[in-house]
Amino acid sequence: GSDSNLIRATLFPGDGIGPEIAESVKQVFRTAGVPIEWEEHFVGQEIDPRTQSFLTWESLESVRRNKVGLKGPMATPIGKGHRSLNLTLRKELNLYANVRPCYSLPGYKTRYDDVDLITIRENTEGEYSGLEHQVVRGVVESLKIITRQASLRVAEYAFHYAQAHGRQRVSAIHKANIMQKTDGLFLKCCREVAEKYPDIMYEEVVIDNCCMMLVKNPANFDVLVMPNLYGDIISDLCAGLIGGLGLTPSCNIGEGGIALAEAVHGSAPDIAGKNLANPTALLLSAVTMLRHLELHDKADRIQNAILKTIAEGKYRTADLGGKSTTTDFTKAICDYI
Amino acid sequence: GSDSNLIRATLFPGDGIGPEIAESVKQVFRTAGVPIEWEEHFVGQEIDPRTQSFLTWESLESVRRNKVGLKGPMATPIGKGHRSLNLTLRKELNLYANVRPCYSLPGYKTRYDDVDLITIRENTEGEYSGLEHQVVRGVVESLKIITRQASLRVAEYAFHYAQAHGRQRVSAIHKANIMQKTDGLFLKCCREVAEKYPDIMYEEVVIDNCCMMLVKNPANFDVLVMPNLYGDIISDLCAGLIGGLGLTPSCNIGEGGIALAEAVHGSAPDIAGKNLANPTALLLSAVTMLRHLELHDKADRIQNAILKTIAEGKYRTADLGGKSTTTDFTKAICDYI
Ligand SMILES: CC(C)[C@H](C(=O)O)[C@@H](O)C(=O)O
Ligand SMILES: CC(C)[C@H](C(=O)O)[C@@H](O)C(=O)O
Repeated sequence: GSDSNLIRATLFPGDGIGPEIAESVKQVFRTAGVPIEWEEHFVGQEIDPRTQSFLTWESLESVRRNKVGLKGPMATPIGKGHRSLNLTLRKELNLYANVRPCYSLPGYKTRYDDVDLITIRENTEGEYSGLEHQVVRGVVESLKIITRQASLRVAEYAFHYAQAHGRQRVSAIHKANIMQKTDGLFLKCCREVAEKYPDIMYEEVVIDNCCMMLVKNPANFDVLVMPNLYGDIISDLCAGLIGGLGLTPSCNIGEGGIALAEAVHGSAPDIAGKNLANPTALLLSAVTMLRHLELHDKADRIQNAILKTIAEGKYRTADLGGKSTTTDFTKAICDYI
Repeated sequence: GSDSNLIRATLFPGDGIGPEIAESVKQVFRTAGVPIEWEEHFVGQEIDPRTQSFLTWESLESVRRNKVGLKGPMATPIGKGHRSLNLTLRKELNLYANVRPCYSLPGYKTRYDDVDLITIRENTEGEYSGLEHQVVRGVVESLKIITRQASLRVAEYAFHYAQAHGRQRVSAIHKANIMQKTDGLFLKCCREVAEKYPDIMYEEVVIDNCCMMLVKNPANFDVLVMPNLYGDIISDLCAGLIGGLGLTPSCNIGEGGIALAEAVHGSAPDIAGKNLANPTALLLSAVTMLRHLELHDKADRIQNAILKTIAEGKYRTADLGGKSTTTDFTKAICDYI
């Protein structure tokens, strides 16, 4: 039965370890009394002609209607004639900005302390156009498409995010010294938006130099905004600084106020069903969803409980060097709440 | 006067700190008795119509004739109607492979110990095609071109290098899950070449994952080969692991056996002429040139002297936290020799 006081949210548990870590989120949300009712959708068994992928049209409609959702890892089934599930979601729901906060987890030691970065990735165009041709045998080309509309949109989002979160600086990452027209247009759009935010510092950094500076000292940066492929690369690099994709949340922002949070790690089929998966990335992604819904109290309580459990170190999953099961780790978080 | 026992090599001192660090190389080579006679060429004051850049045709002819050269940093002068100096060199001399060894310098501490990586970058095509169009207002495209010929050539070079240097493994870095045709062709060529080298392990790693793995644990990799832009990004990331571009050598391999070694850092106009520049990257690049000439004894002696001087720590330039001038640091190296 549906309770009209509850916020309806779409849940894609996904493949592999997806259902286990999704269960962890449901349990933590229940414990914290989050007023959400999940609408669960699974990856289909057949290609849905309306989406050209294994994602059903109904599941996309669910996100469009609810405007908020959470997604576990989806392994794109091998074979021809369908689109990747992740790309289908981005295209169909027009998920134009991918936001990946990346911060050091207290008590979980890596080579870097006090990392605190936000990468904001354009998520719909660039090198992901899907336009590729064989010109003559042995010569192939891919088209990178940059548009003013998508560049302004993601730049707006980045500056808006920086302001709303009390951030000091936005760095636009590019390779306009080589791709003067495409990345040049991206930068031009960022500059236009930057002028509307005089309180936020703005700079432009070439991607190669950015990667070097990130590994030398991540404190060089604050909020980073960039075209699609650079965002793919840099967000994973940043995740590596603090321990990997198992620990970093991600949220996709779409047209019309859609927010689809997701764990960006793989579906880990080798440990699926064994109660060994680390639900942290999906849990922290779920927290970004709560913040999008302005449920900051719940978000804070859950985030604190996750971070404290990891910091305390008694309950950690194997990927973090511990021996806990998914359910033990989840229970420890619930106990903190 | 020219001595017929000497090997003639082209030297581009370059701009900014270029002449000072080139002087350091000349002094170290003299001290070690390297049988090289330099043919010096400077960046021109006017656009040479035959190269469409500030590089003179004579300087390119010099490299073509000598087949070996060393290049300091070149700042591409701002303004329209000419090509970047670096890109002109790559195009005109067909410098198809850029080799960047990256290893931890003993005694110079960073967050990473025992880094020992070789990145081999395709250097002529890919995202550097220079083909960009505005399709309609606000929509621009860049063409990435991958050819079978250039991919085979760089893959051949990478496996040959791995074998000649006793390396275990070659990793091809790509994003063929998105750019199936272009990066797919690159991988296909790597696989073909890999079959000819059964003793060398071969693997394929997606670029985002590669960056994450590199920052988590660089020992995950050995020799990395990749298309142009990924090489640009990953070689700088790797340089960051061991301290930056001031410490990493680079050598460009061209058709017909050309080797043009170069320092890939900038020309640092702020400290130019002040005797403060660190010549390490240019010195280590010069060492790769000697190895190309099979002058391994000289190469070893010079490389050891550089590494020992840095390790000892008494003479270090300001960028490494020391107080030495360029000439003091150079003298310390010469004393070791
Ligand atoms: C799986 C892959 C298509 C995807 C991408 O390249 O965007 C992934 O790396 C990501 O970052 O979400
Ligand atoms: C200066 C720039 C054009 C160049 C490149 O992008 O190749 C540089 O970054 C390099 O790596 O040599």
